[in-house]
Amino acid sequence: MNAAFDPPSPSAWQSAQALIGQDVADIDTPALVVDLDAMERNLAHMAAYARAHGLRLRPHAKMHKSADLARLQMAHGAVGVCVQKTDEALALARAGVTDIYISNEVIALPKLKRLAEAVQALPDTRFAIAVDSAAGVLRLAQALEAAGVGGEGRIDVFVEVDVGHGRCGVPPGEPAVDLARLIAQHPVLRFGGQQAYHRQAQHRRDPADRAKAIGEAAWAAALTRERLQAAGFTVPLITGAGTGTFALETSSRVWGELQAGSYLFMDADYARNESAPLAPVFEHALFIKAHVMSRGAQHAVCDAGHKSHAIDSGLPTVWSPSGLVFANGGDEHGILRATHAGHPLPNLGDTVWLVPGHCDPTVNLHNMMLGVRGGLTEGKVERLFRVDARGALG
Amino acid sequence: MNAAFDPPSPSAWQSAQALIGQDVADIDTPALVVDLDAMERNLAHMAAYARAHGLRLRPHAKMHKSADLARLQMAHGAVGVCVQKTDEALALARAGVTDIYISNEVIALPKLKRLAEAVQALPDTRFAIAVDSAAGVLRLAQALEAAGVGGEGRIDVFVEVDVGHGRCGVPPGEPAVDLARLIAQHPVLRFGGQQAYHRQAQHRRDPADRAKAIGEAAWAAALTRERLQAAGFTVPLITGAGTGTFALETSSRVWGELQAGSYLFMDADYARNESAPLAPVFEHALFIKAHVMSRGAQHAVCDAGHKSHAIDSGLPTVWSPSGLVFANGGDEHGILRATHAGHPLPNLGDTVWLVPGHCDPTVNLHNMMLGVRGGLTEGKVERLFRVDARGALG
Repeated sequence: MNAAFDPPSPSAWQSAQALIGQDVADIDTPALVVDLDAMERNLAHMAAYARAHGLRLRPHAKMHKSADLARLQMAHGAVGVCVQKTDEALALARAGVTDIYISNEVIALPKLKRLAEAVQALPDTRFAIAVDSAAGVLRLAQALEAAGVGGEGRIDVFVEVDVGHGRCGVPPGEPAVDLARLIAQHPVLRFGGQQAYHRQAQHRRDPADRAKAIGEAAWAAALTRERLQAAGFTVPLITGAGTGTFALETSSRVWGELQAGSYLFMDADYARNESAPLAPVFEHALFIKAHVMSRGAQHAVCDAGHKSHAIDSGLPTVWSPSGLVFANGGDEHGILRATHAGHPLPNLGDTVWLVPGHCDPTVNLHNMMLGVRGGLTEGKVERLFRVDARGALG
Repeated sequence: MNAAFDPPSPSAWQSAQALIGQDVADIDTPALVVDLDAMERNLAHMAAYARAHGLRLRPHAKMHKSADLARLQMAHGAVGVCVQKTDEALALARAGVTDIYISNEVIALPKLKRLAEAVQALPDTRFAIAVDSAAGVLRLAQALEAAGVGGEGRIDVFVEVDVGHGRCGVPPGEPAVDLARLIAQHPVLRFGGQQAYHRQAQHRRDPADRAKAIGEAAWAAALTRERLQAAGFTVPLITGAGTGTFALETSSRVWGELQAGSYLFMDADYARNESAPLAPVFEHALFIKAHVMSRGAQHAVCDAGHKSHAIDSGLPTVWSPSGLVFANGGDEHGILRATHAGHPLPNLGDTVWLVPGHCDPTVNLHNMMLGVRGGLTEGKVERLFRVDARGALG
């Protein structure tokens, strides 16, 4: 594994167990808190949705990076999880997750070596990966061979098609056929189908804009499937979609698997999307507990800044107390102001609950999440979720 | 200590030692790399500046969170370091840093308990802290008593004055006198002077704007000193300043101690400040090594997104190759485009060096920094810096 990546140590994890049973009021701040009741409703809601529509659900574990949460999702019908990074896959595999898809390109030799060694060492764990270049296919096959991985179809390989987001992926149509042919030349690889995800579509506020983007993406994915089939390939699966658009991918009947991840926690950014017809609505389940550590005449200062929550998708919103807005106070501070004159500000020492702007990089700032049962006022810590793949960048 | 905070484990740290001696070309990506030659020039430059002006230098270790770097700064004349969080102070103290100032308010009882226990357990380590409320003074004194800390002046207490940034701190003048009186009632506390830092002034691009802000801050700090002296207090020190303004605090002759931290690494955001008369110029010494993992016709995709660098102060700039601009590709990707048509894009697998927008929260995303000697092309890894206080939020 990458020596630069270091998950929470067993001893620190063990000492953290003392937090179980603690009253919410006693949680030291800033802390990342999961409202278990809300999370379980989101979990069940999404599982029911996928089941009702006959779709596979493979939630993106890049969001929570937790083997326990991955297992919980799989216990509720998910076929496995996605990740974006080799070391995320290895961290979750080591923690016992048995079906992991790296929905991203890996062409660096040391990473492919680590992955191939894991494929060889963990024969009961199913790995899959995306490619968008001939080099990606060839280097993967060579790394598997070098690690002594034999047999047929030991890893599923998905060809990523750029269905509109302009990041990774080959253009729709023939380029995907070329890569499928290359994959077919290596029996150790199995052609899994298409990776088709439209990142920017997730956060377009107007549902009509999201529908337009996913309509185009569906066309690109369907066109590519036609070309693959015309060339004699079976396309086992088209996989993609996120929390902002999955109802659209579902309606299109082009996708067979949904990769939404944020639905489990819901962040402030996704909550700013205007809701769309047919799309289930999820609850906020991830919070930052902070407290007021300084008071001015017209503002309060809390102890959570952007070392405790990511601000790439906007600042946190204030969940409670009501009537407050969060302004940027730097790495370690948040400035709280009243939304209208005369509204009371919280006092020194008061608890403040924030909803992070973007859950994925927020979770990555923490070693663990505290799962609370019974609400954010009267609840108790019931369990901890270790962020097993925190900092797994490689 | 806070169980939620877990520094790199000894075993992972030990295995990382294998990276020493590695060629730059072999560093797996994304990685946080320190150009040791550039950093040492910055180190020497700032030390010489403080010495030449007869000022104490107490660099902000919230930036690097590394005990080794703190010691290096102290070996070059720094009197100690600042931090913003209790757990940062404890992490550095445990790693052997002997003079640590929490330049921030702490009023949460569990944190004060941890701090007081450290004061008691580490009699050779000098701690200091800022206050801006009566509760802050009283709770600190009570926590020290509860931990059995006796004697006189066991911890320096600085009264934070809001000199213009509208975050923490009492208003200039009499409120600081009230707090100094309260501090004087507790012999275990020693009144250290004033904390006077103007955050927003650091990043105003026009040097005239920075001069105006620090001019006002100097007035507020001097006024407060006058009031304190009129009330019979000696004001041992006024401490503050950052990398964007320290030459202004120096010129004012009001401050006796500089807290600049980013000078050591210099980030893209500070580099956007227009340079000011009399202010030393520092070099970029902190880089993200990334590589191209996907290529489109008009763009390349590298494997560094905002889980590997903070973007609160803007996206990274591309250090090399030249002629590229970095666009947001999400948590795990960066999009590279040519600055003008026809400029070549890097190829699949090529190395890309990025300068992070903001060094402090970028370092916090990593377990360690790789110190490279001999430049980013031909150099080798000479030493590692552990991010001892990574994730120390409490």
